[in-house]
Amino acid sequence: MKAIVAHAAKDLRLEDQEMPSPGPGEVLIRMERGGICGSDLHYYNHGGFGTVRLKEPMILGHEVSGTIEALGAGVETVQIGDLVAVSPSRPCYTCAYCQKGMQNHCMDMRFYGSAMPFPHIQGAFREYMVADARQCAPAAGLSAAEAAMAEPLSVVLHAAKRAGDLMGKRVLVTGCGPIGQLAVLVARACGAVEIVATDVAPFTLEMAQKIGADSVHNVAEDPGALDQYAPNKGNFDVLFECSGVAAALAATIPALRPGAVIMQLGLGGDMTLPVQAMTAKEIELRGSFRFHAEFFEAVEMMQAGRLKVKPLVTHAHGLENAVEAFDLASDRSQAIKVQIQFS
Amino acid sequence: MKAIVAHAAKDLRLEDQEMPSPGPGEVLIRMERGGICGSDLHYYNHGGFGTVRLKEPMILGHEVSGTIEALGAGVETVQIGDLVAVSPSRPCYTCAYCQKGMQNHCMDMRFYGSAMPFPHIQGAFREYMVADARQCAPAAGLSAAEAAMAEPLSVVLHAAKRAGDLMGKRVLVTGCGPIGQLAVLVARACGAVEIVATDVAPFTLEMAQKIGADSVHNVAEDPGALDQYAPNKGNFDVLFECSGVAAALAATIPALRPGAVIMQLGLGGDMTLPVQAMTAKEIELRGSFRFHAEFFEAVEMMQAGRLKVKPLVTHAHGLENAVEAFDLASDRSQAIKVQIQFS
Amino acid sequence: MKAIVAHAAKDLRLEDQEMPSPGPGEVLIRMERGGICGSDLHYYNHGGFGTVRLKEPMILGHEVSGTIEALGAGVETVQIGDLVAVSPSRPCYTCAYCQKGMQNHCMDMRFYGSAMPFPHIQGAFREYMVADARQCAPAAGLSAAEAAMAEPLSVVLHAAKRAGDLMGKRVLVTGCGPIGQLAVLVARACGAVEIVATDVAPFTLEMAQKIGADSVHNVAEDPGALDQYAPNKGNFDVLFECSGVAAALAATIPALRPGAVIMQLGLGGDMTLPVQAMTAKEIELRGSFRFHAEFFEAVEMMQAGRLKVKPLVTHAHGLENAVEAFDLASDRSQAIKVQIQFS
Amino acid sequence: MKAIVAHAAKDLRLEDQEMPSPGPGEVLIRMERGGICGSDLHYYNHGGFGTVRLKEPMILGHEVSGTIEALGAGVETVQIGDLVAVSPSRPCYTCAYCQKGMQNHCMDMRFYGSAMPFPHIQGAFREYMVADARQCAPAAGLSAAEAAMAEPLSVVLHAAKRAGDLMGKRVLVTGCGPIGQLAVLVARACGAVEIVATDVAPFTLEMAQKIGADSVHNVAEDPGALDQYAPNKGNFDVLFECSGVAAALAATIPALRPGAVIMQLGLGGDMTLPVQAMTAKEIELRGSFRFHAEFFEAVEMMQAGRLKVKPLVTHAHGLENAVEAFDLASDRSQAIKVQIQFS
Repeated sequence: MKAIVAHAAKDLRLEDQEMPSPGPGEVLIRMERGGICGSDLHYYNHGGFGTVRLKEPMILGHEVSGTIEALGAGVETVQIGDLVAVSPSRPCYTCAYCQKGMQNHCMDMRFYGSAMPFPHIQGAFREYMVADARQCAPAAGLSAAEAAMAEPLSVVLHAAKRAGDLMGKRVLVTGCGPIGQLAVLVARACGAVEIVATDVAPFTLEMAQKIGADSVHNVAEDPGALDQYAPNKGNFDVLFECSGVAAALAATIPALRPGAVIMQLGLGGDMTLPVQAMTAKEIELRGSFRFHAEFFEAVEMMQAGRLKVKPLVTHAHGLENAVEAFDLASDRSQAIKVQIQFS
Repeated sequence: MKAIVAHAAKDLRLEDQEMPSPGPGEVLIRMERGGICGSDLHYYNHGGFGTVRLKEPMILGHEVSGTIEALGAGVETVQIGDLVAVSPSRPCYTCAYCQKGMQNHCMDMRFYGSAMPFPHIQGAFREYMVADARQCAPAAGLSAAEAAMAEPLSVVLHAAKRAGDLMGKRVLVTGCGPIGQLAVLVARACGAVEIVATDVAPFTLEMAQKIGADSVHNVAEDPGALDQYAPNKGNFDVLFECSGVAAALAATIPALRPGAVIMQLGLGGDMTLPVQAMTAKEIELRGSFRFHAEFFEAVEMMQAGRLKVKPLVTHAHGLENAVEAFDLASDRSQAIKVQIQFS
Repeated sequence: MKAIVAHAAKDLRLEDQEMPSPGPGEVLIRMERGGICGSDLHYYNHGGFGTVRLKEPMILGHEVSGTIEALGAGVETVQIGDLVAVSPSRPCYTCAYCQKGMQNHCMDMRFYGSAMPFPHIQGAFREYMVADARQCAPAAGLSAAEAAMAEPLSVVLHAAKRAGDLMGKRVLVTGCGPIGQLAVLVARACGAVEIVATDVAPFTLEMAQKIGADSVHNVAEDPGALDQYAPNKGNFDVLFECSGVAAALAATIPALRPGAVIMQLGLGGDMTLPVQAMTAKEIELRGSFRFHAEFFEAVEMMQAGRLKVKPLVTHAHGLENAVEAFDLASDRSQAIKVQIQFS
Repeated sequence: MKAIVAHAAKDLRLEDQEMPSPGPGEVLIRMERGGICGSDLHYYNHGGFGTVRLKEPMILGHEVSGTIEALGAGVETVQIGDLVAVSPSRPCYTCAYCQKGMQNHCMDMRFYGSAMPFPHIQGAFREYMVADARQCAPAAGLSAAEAAMAEPLSVVLHAAKRAGDLMGKRVLVTGCGPIGQLAVLVARACGAVEIVATDVAPFTLEMAQKIGADSVHNVAEDPGALDQYAPNKGNFDVLFECSGVAAALAATIPALRPGAVIMQLGLGGDMTLPVQAMTAKEIELRGSFRFHAEFFEAVEMMQAGRLKVKPLVTHAHGLENAVEAFDLASDRSQAIKVQIQFS
C-alpha cells in the first residue's frame, strides 16, 4: 500500500509501506479522503515551521476519513463497512490533563503527521491504516469528503466553545483560509447577528460571503476597511484571528468592543501587539489549540445538518497526483480545501 | 381613542381614553399589533395569578409594535413614520441593579400591563400611546406582526443567554406555548445539535416540529416518552422549562445529564421537586425573568434573518374582536400567538 | 484486623476481617483516623436514607487517613511511613464523564461505604486497608486528624468551586453541621466580605462564629432572623444550603439577591420550593455532589495553612468505643466532627 | 487653598486655587491623604506616557481620602464629618457601557488627574475639593491612609474578579510595585494556595513576602528563577502581570499551565510576545483597566478586615514636601506607596 511521505521541503514521495493489521481495540481502515492542512503545506513547502522541523521522513496528513475493513478484538463501537471520520488526536487518556478533560494538552500526545517529537508521529495520508477504535467517529449520512472535514471543523468548534456564546454577537474573521471559512460557518450556525470577514484574496472572500458572511473586505485593496467599525469604541464582540499575521491582528483593535474576545487560531511565532491599547479596552487574547471531544461533536453537527461544509471542499485529487494537490492547496486564489482521494 | 381594559375575570372592556401627547424624550405611537401573552390571559380568565391580582381596572398588553406619529423634544433615535417595536420594560436606569446591567431587577420597574404594584402599571393595548424613545427599537424590514414578537422573543433570548453556549448541545423544551416555541427557534438558530419538545396538545407539537424541533412527544398520550433519553445518565444538556408544571419538570430529571441546566421560564407558584435526585446529578435550576438589553437584540436578530418568527403568529383580530381574540389565545389546540390588529 | 460493620439500624459491630495485601499500583495502609459522616449516621441510626438502604452488612466510613505500611509493584507516588489522606472516590477513569473531568459522575463509581449499588461498596473504618495509590494524598505536615478532614473539605471545595468567585461576596450558610462549618471556613478563606450562618443548635453556632462567621442566628429561637437581610431585594450573593430542609431553604429567598446562587449540599429528598419567587429573582439552585480533583487540593490547602480545620474535630474515640462515637456524632448539641482513632 | 499642579516634566508646583462649593448632589471634602500612583509619576518624571501627554497644567492625583465638610442639596448618603474614600471614576451613568455595568468603559468618562482628553481632567491633590456624593464611600473604621488605598485596591479587585475564582490556584505576580503588592494581598485573601512574586528590587520582594507571598525571586540576580516552575507544562494558573515589560511577560510562559490566565495590569505600549507558544498552551491574555463598582467593595473589604493594606503605605509627606514625595515614590529601593498628607 502507498503513503505520501515528506522527506524535506519540496521533496514529497509516494512510497510503498507494509500493510498494517489491527490489534485489540484497533481497526483497519481503508482511507477515503484526506484534506491538506496548513501544517502539511508548511512541511511540504518549507520543511517545517518555527522550531518544528522535519528530521526524518514523515507521512503527512491528519484530516482523514475511511471505511472500516477489519476489526481487532473487542471492538464494538464500529462495524466493517462503516464510513468513519478518524481523529488524529491520540492522547494518553491517563495524565493529569487528560483526567481534567484537557486532552489537547496531554503530556504524551501523539498527533498524526506531527514533527514535534522525535521520532516523528507518522500521519494518515496512506491507503490503509490502523487506528484505535476510540479515534473513529461513525459518519453515516455524510460523504467521505465531509467526514474528512471533521478535523478542521473540530479545531473551530473548540475555539468557538472557548469564545463562549455567539448568540446575537458581532463576529469578525481575519484570514479566510479553511479555518477562517469554518469560523464563518460556525458563527452563522450559532446565532451571530453580524459576521464580517477579511482576507487579501478575492476568491476566499467570495466563498466567505457565499457560506454566511454578511460582508467581506479585501484588506490588501482597502487597508482601512475596518475603520467603519471603530466608532462608539468598536463594533465586534469576537474576533477569530485565522491569519497569524501580527499586523492583521493589530489592525482590528479599534474595531473591537471593550471586553471583546480574540480567539487566536493563526500560528505566527512572535507577534508585536498593541498591548496597551488592548489592555485599555480589556480585550482578551485567547489561544486555541487543537481539540478533543469536539471531534465527535463535529461529525454529529454535520450529520444533523447544522453545518454544511461541502462547498469548502473545492478540489479532490487522486493519490498519484499528490504533488499537484499540494501545489494547488498552496494557492489561495483558487482553492479552499484540497483533498486527496485515496481509492 | 380606544383601549382594552380588564376590570375583573372575564370582564374585558373596550373603553375610550384620552389621547396622550409626548413630552421631552418621548414619542407618540399609533399602535399596529399587540400579542396576547400568558399573563394577559391570567388577568382575563382568572383576574390574576398567585398573589398578583387586579385591584383596579388595567389596560392589558405588553407585546406591541406601532408607528411613530409625533416626536417630543430632543428625540433623535427614531423618526415620524418609523415602525418600532416598543419595549414594555421601563426601569429607573439609576438604581444599583440598573447600574450593574441587571435592569430586569430594577428596584423601581414599571412594566406595562402589570398588576404587581398598586396603582397598577397600565398596559399597551390601545390605539395610541406615549412611550420613552428609549423603549422604541426601529424595526425597518420587519412586519408589524414580527415587531410585536420582539417582547416574547426577548424573554427567550434572555433565558438562552443565561443558559450559556448552546452550540452542539442537546436541548429539551417542555411546554410548547409561544415561549416554548421560541425556545425551539432560538435553540435551532444557536447551534443546538438536537432539539426535543414535549407538550400535551398535538397542534403545538406540530408547530414545534415545523420550526425546528428534531422530535416531539405528546406526554399526555405517552407519559413515558422521555424514558428513551434516560440511559447513560441522561441525554439533555439544557432544559427550557416552559410549562410551569412541577410534574413536567420532575419527569425530565432522569433524561438530563449530570451538570445539566434547567432554565425555568414557566411560572408555577410553589413546586415540589426531586431535589435529592437533582443534587446528585448536580443539575442547576436557573430562574429567568423578563429581559432588558435583549429587546433591541431581538429586533436585530429578526432583521438579520436569524430568527423567523412569522409562522408563530397564527391569528390576528381587530380591536373590536378583542374578547374573541382572548378566548382564541386561551385555546392551545388551534392557536400559538394571537395578536390584536389595532388599525 | 478489625472493622466497623453496620448490619442494620442500631446494629453496629466490631468484626474481624482478613488482612489484605496490596497488588500492583496499590498500597497497604494502617488506618489512623476516620471521621463519622452524616451518611454513616444515617446507616447507623436508620439503616439508610431515601431509597438507599442496607441490604447486606457493610463496613462504614469514607473520611480517613492512615500510614503507608507496604507498597505494591510500581508505586512511586508514596513511600512506606507516609501519612496519607485516602480519597474514598474510586471512579473508572475511562468512561465519558471521567474523560470530561467529571469523575464524580463516573458511570462505574465505587465510593467507599456506600449502599447505593449491590453488592455494597465496603467502607474504610478498619485497622488496615488496601487502596489504589492514586487515592492517596501525601499529607506531610498535617496531623492524622486533619488529614481525615480532607474528604468533607473536598465536598465543600467542590461546591465552592461551582459557586464561583467568593471574593467580596456576602455568603449565607444554613445548617452548621460539619459541612456547614467547612463552608464558613472556606468562604472566609476565599475572600467573602460577610458570612452569616444559621442553625438551631447553640453549640454549632458558637463554633461557626469562632471559625469565621461574622454573625450567626438561631432560627429555632428567632424564626424571623433573616428578615433583616431582605431589604433592597436581599443581601446575600451565595447560599450554602447544608440543612437539607425545604423550609430552611424557602426562608432564605427574601434574603437572597437577584441572581444569587444556592449551592445545595444538604440532601433532603423531595422539597417543596417557592419556585415562582426564585424565578422572579433569577436565583440559581445548583446541586453539588461529592468531588474528585478537590481531594488533593484540600490536602494542599491545609498544608499551606490556608484552611485550619483542627477546631472542628471536637472528639476522637478509640475503635473499641465506636458505638459511643456514633451516638456522640449524632448529637449536634456537643459535637461537630467525631473521629475514630484506629491505632 | 493649595493644589499640586504639574506643568511639564519635573515641573511640579504648589499653587493657590479658589475654594469650591458644592452644588446639588455634591459634597465639599477636606482632603486627608493622597497616594502617588504610577501615572502621577509618569506625568511628573516624563510629562506623560505613550501618546498621553500634558498639554496644559493639570492637578495630579486620584487616590484620595478626605473628610466631609459641607453637603450640597439632597445629599443623604454621607454626613458632615465622615471620613470617605473618594473614587476618581466619574462615568456618565447613561451611555450604553454604563448601562451594561461596564462603567470603566464609559464613553464620556472623566477620571481625575488624567491628560487623556483635552481639556485635561483635573486631579484630586488639593486641600479641598467638590465631588459627586456618588463618588464617596464612607470609610468609618479605617484610617485616612487606608481609605486612600481604596483606589489602587479597586484596580486589583477588578483584575482579580476578571481572573475568576482564585481558590486553590497557583498565582504568579510579576512586578512588585504597589499594584503587584496588592495583587499578592488579594490572592492571599481569596484562597490562592501558592503565591510567587518576582521583581528586581530587594525591598519590594521583602515586602511581598511579608504580606503573603510564599516565595519571591529577584529576576535581576537570577534570570532563570522561573525555570523551576516549568516542568509538567507549567505550575501557575494565574499571572498578575504588573511590570508592563514584554520580556518579563514572555519569560513566564514556560511556567504557566495550559489554559492559564494572564491579567495584564502593567501598561507597556506595544509588546513583542511569544504568541505561538501562548496559543499552543491556550493561554488567555486579559487586559484589565481601572474599575467601577469595586471601589465601594474595596472599602468594605478593608473595613471587614479581609485586606490589610497598612504595611504598604511606607511613607507620608506633607503637602509642602510634594516634590520630595514624588522623588521618593519613584524609588522602588525604599518605597512602596508614598502618600501626601494634606492637613
